[in-house]
Amino acid sequence: MYDLIIIGAGIAGMTASIYASRYGLKHLIFGENPGGQGNLAHTIENYPGIKSIKGPELMKRVSEQVENYGVKIRREKVIGLKTKDQGPRTKDTNQKFKNSNQFLVKISSGNEYSAKSLVLAMGATHRHLNIPGEEKFLGKGVSYCTTCDAPLFRDKVVAVVGGGNAALSGALHLASFVKKVYLIHHRDEFRAEKAWVEKLKKNKKIKLILLSTVKEVYGKEKVEGIIIKSLNHKNIKTKKRQQVDGLFIEVGKTPSIILAAQLRVELNEKNYVLVDANMKTNIVGVFAAGDLCLQKEQMVLCQFVAAAADGARAAASAYQFLTKKDPGASWGSFDKK
Amino acid sequence: MYDLIIIGAGIAGMTASIYASRYGLKHLIFGENPGGQGNLAHTIENYPGIKSIKGPELMKRVSEQVENYGVKIRREKVIGLKTKDQGPRTKDTNQKFKNSNQFLVKISSGNEYSAKSLVLAMGATHRHLNIPGEEKFLGKGVSYCTTCDAPLFRDKVVAVVGGGNAALSGALHLASFVKKVYLIHHRDEFRAEKAWVEKLKKNKKIKLILLSTVKEVYGKEKVEGIIIKSLNHKNIKTKKRQQVDGLFIEVGKTPSIILAAQLRVELNEKNYVLVDANMKTNIVGVFAAGDLCLQKEQMVLCQFVAAAADGARAAASAYQFLTKKDPGASWGSFDKK
Repeated sequence: MYDLIIIGAGIAGMTASIYASRYGLKHLIFGENPGGQGNLAHTIENYPGIKSIKGPELMKRVSEQVENYGVKIRREKVIGLKTKDQGPRTKDTNQKFKNSNQFLVKISSGNEYSAKSLVLAMGATHRHLNIPGEEKFLGKGVSYCTTCDAPLFRDKVVAVVGGGNAALSGALHLASFVKKVYLIHHRDEFRAEKAWVEKLKKNKKIKLILLSTVKEVYGKEKVEGIIIKSLNHKNIKTKKRQQVDGLFIEVGKTPSIILAAQLRVELNEKNYVLVDANMKTNIVGVFAAGDLCLQKEQMVLCQFVAAAADGARAAASAYQFLTKKDPGASWGSFDKK
Repeated sequence: MYDLIIIGAGIAGMTASIYASRYGLKHLIFGENPGGQGNLAHTIENYPGIKSIKGPELMKRVSEQVENYGVKIRREKVIGLKTKDQGPRTKDTNQKFKNSNQFLVKISSGNEYSAKSLVLAMGATHRHLNIPGEEKFLGKGVSYCTTCDAPLFRDKVVAVVGGGNAALSGALHLASFVKKVYLIHHRDEFRAEKAWVEKLKKNKKIKLILLSTVKEVYGKEKVEGIIIKSLNHKNIKTKKRQQVDGLFIEVGKTPSIILAAQLRVELNEKNYVLVDANMKTNIVGVFAAGDLCLQKEQMVLCQFVAAAADGARAAASAYQFLTKKDPGASWGSFDKK
């Protein structure tokens, strides 16, 4: 019986583990791919305290911190979560549960572990365009990771779809390998940080195709081109074929909620795990952190520092939950003298 | 006219500045003492990505990141904040304000600056015990900063009051300079991370005096001793005098809300600036971040990574506010495709 099991070993889960170790909680952390989405980040220039760092390098440093406390990140797939004995919890957060909740975590090997509390930190996965050819050519020209796959397209022509930080920093990263990058975005402005936009506009290898969407990926064995739908200057929709060797899709993320759904954790209207300001879910003893979750009316902010802070807070809340006998009364007590 | 003025240059304000720069916001950041409370932290062992670092060193790195974007941290004291023309805002957050709010920031030299938005990040100050002698002997044996003042007590005897991370890590820091440390705490357990508690218990220079409070500091020119009130094993209150050369008071923090009060920003019941999940205060265009603020029912968590995340989110929210014309509709739009 563990105090805490953390599901997910991205920066949120790993920070939760660092804090759990500091708090002396006996815990496990599961993550098939330690570092998670952080490993896909090309360059991080806005993490306070570190001027510029590659995603995998930051993730490596954090995982070393985790393991320095004697906690080994278990590279195993969690396939099931449930509440022990009492069955799944209802949504009634006003009801006072006994502090005896126990959770069962099942992994793909068949082993099961039980814990008094959980931190859900499974993160998010890349959103798909759901267009013809996207699935067929995955790994044959279609990619969701510029950092991983850019070197495969040396001196070729590629397209990137998206308008956020991932798309723009990805296009810039690609530009250092390929001959030409088409950046295709459905609006005429970017939601990415202006710092990326300015770098983008200065890069002569990158051509912007705005007010446009990708409708199809075509080819025989591998990607040969894409069909782009645009608004021309007369506001008339046009379609054209563009030869490319690769298509990088960076159109945002979808929270990974399958395991959370097994516990019947409450979700918000966009399918994020709903948490309160202390990272509590509606189920007593279950906390969440990182790109998986949002507070009510909270803006999405997929940032390392934000996910890390979530993880710290989730662990602090789990600690409070585990050490105080009445979870309803525990909040704020860190502050009491 | 600036897009944004940030008041306070601790890790929250500085991270807000890094993000504001990334978003291309024309902004100022004021802080008399860049680094703020972060400069007082002895050793930080739970900041994800950096295994162990001294507070001032982390603060130096972050301030360099700020200034790398061409933003100079202004070492000036802000003495006044007000809403331009329209006077202070009411608490009615449902009312839709025009997006024309402007704020005036007055500094001690008499200069005034105006901005379309503010981030309040003034942090917190050390809480006092309010006991006889505390004020009289400040700087003469009474200190609120172990990191700053430990070297002044080499081979002497000191007492530390408190039970949180600051008190325990401070006592350990002191132990490497002084002959003996009495750690006085009013409970018989600590709210500090267990990692600190374990180090503390192993340190032979540190003697714990639990279930005890300090009632008075006495001396002539400088501190000569303290009066300690304790519960003995028969649960009877006793008082005793203990000779010490110094008393370090680490009993928590009080948010620095004087400037916020000038804007009539809404506070919570503990006098923290009240924010929502996006760091918005009740005044449109005014955001807050760091140890100054809390969400409704949010647990206090004075941690670097949490304050940094607050700063990032406050800047993201200011950016949304400045670029969207309807603040009421802006939330969540980072996520929209």
